[in-house]
Amino acid sequence: MEIKVMHQVMEWNEDVSAQVRKTLAERKVCLINVMGSPGAGKTSLITALIARLQEKFAIGVIEGDITGQIDAEKIAALGIPAVQLNTDGACHIEAMSIQRILPQFDLDALDLLFVENIGNLVCPAEFDIGENFRITILSIPEGDDKVKKYPLMFTDTDCLVLNKCDMLPYFDFSLETVAEDYRRVNPEGPLFQVSSRSGEGLTALAEHLEGRIRAALL
Amino acid sequence: MEIKVMHQVMEWNEDVSAQVRKTLAERKVCLINVMGSPGAGKTSLITALIARLQEKFAIGVIEGDITGQIDAEKIAALGIPAVQLNTDGACHIEAMSIQRILPQFDLDALDLLFVENIGNLVCPAEFDIGENFRITILSIPEGDDKVKKYPLMFTDTDCLVLNKCDMLPYFDFSLETVAEDYRRVNPEGPLFQVSSRSGEGLTALAEHLEGRIRAALL
Repeated sequence: MEIKVMHQVMEWNEDVSAQVRKTLAERKVCLINVMGSPGAGKTSLITALIARLQEKFAIGVIEGDITGQIDAEKIAALGIPAVQLNTDGACHIEAMSIQRILPQFDLDALDLLFVENIGNLVCPAEFDIGENFRITILSIPEGDDKVKKYPLMFTDTDCLVLNKCDMLPYFDFSLETVAEDYRRVNPEGPLFQVSSRSGEGLTALAEHLEGRIRAALL
Repeated sequence: MEIKVMHQVMEWNEDVSAQVRKTLAERKVCLINVMGSPGAGKTSLITALIARLQEKFAIGVIEGDITGQIDAEKIAALGIPAVQLNTDGACHIEAMSIQRILPQFDLDALDLLFVENIGNLVCPAEFDIGENFRITILSIPEGDDKVKKYPLMFTDTDCLVLNKCDMLPYFDFSLETVAEDYRRVNPEGPLFQVSSRSGEGLTALAEHLEGRIRAALL
């Protein structure tokens, strides 16, 4: 499968995110914005969710990276339509790039579009890209102080996924600390403990997402 | 020890970084800019290096964080002068903030100033803060594709430290891949494998840094 590489451009983000949201609503496509640090496991989680959701939804993926197309190649190898968005140095994705990329997909044939944002626990949280909802991934090796230190990413999300939970025995990581800090900034937000590698927790997460995707597609 | 909390302001970065560099050269202080992803282990590495360098150099630390003062408290608990710089949402430190903070230290009594940058593998690499040299930390759990995906952080550094090497048995991480990618973008840059937790590799790193610090203080 050929992978298209698109480049990020700048424009008034708020207007454009509203246009993206409108287009996707008309075409009945749910957009999920997946965010987290470099190496939190965004691509692995998307891959694991594709395996659990692809019999229910037709899925596409936009892979955001500063440069290169490593991640889009991984997704395309699964037979899933994938477009690589290169930001050429920029630390987040803006709605204008999503708007430009949407025509690369056959939207009428899609139900669900994952956007993997740039690996960054700061800037992506500031930009609405027209998503229906956001998933923030925090991996166990990153440490349990991250909600305190990067609050916006945990406040402005619809779902917190703690990834690499199979690594809990090897790290000093308090699940209680993270859960408490998260509840403080995001009292309604659900929290899932998963491991994309071991498969732990993925069924519960996929079921939760299925409900949200169906609600978005109504 | 009381911890001062300063706030980030914006100004023309290039002029100010030159002023910071001049001030520190006159006062014989070496500034090391420590960068890496959230949870790469920047604070732990600085702490481990303080233990190995504090008999040779008088050390101070500027702790950069979006919000809060968790890290400055850890450093101050060691009896080391520490100032917390809160960027109030900004994803990197600029030279103007360093210039404003320097008067908080008795520079004539200092030899070495660590600046822990915001946890971010993208934006901090773009800003010269007046440092003598840069250390980039990449931790094993982040994965071995990070040099390809975030090249500037590895190109514009003076030293790459692979941290959490005690976790190598638990992650699919090729040291060869990272070493090759690093050599491609930074042929002269040294690479150290360490674990701040086990202590592995820290003596070699501290010796290397001692040489560079002494050269900067000449």
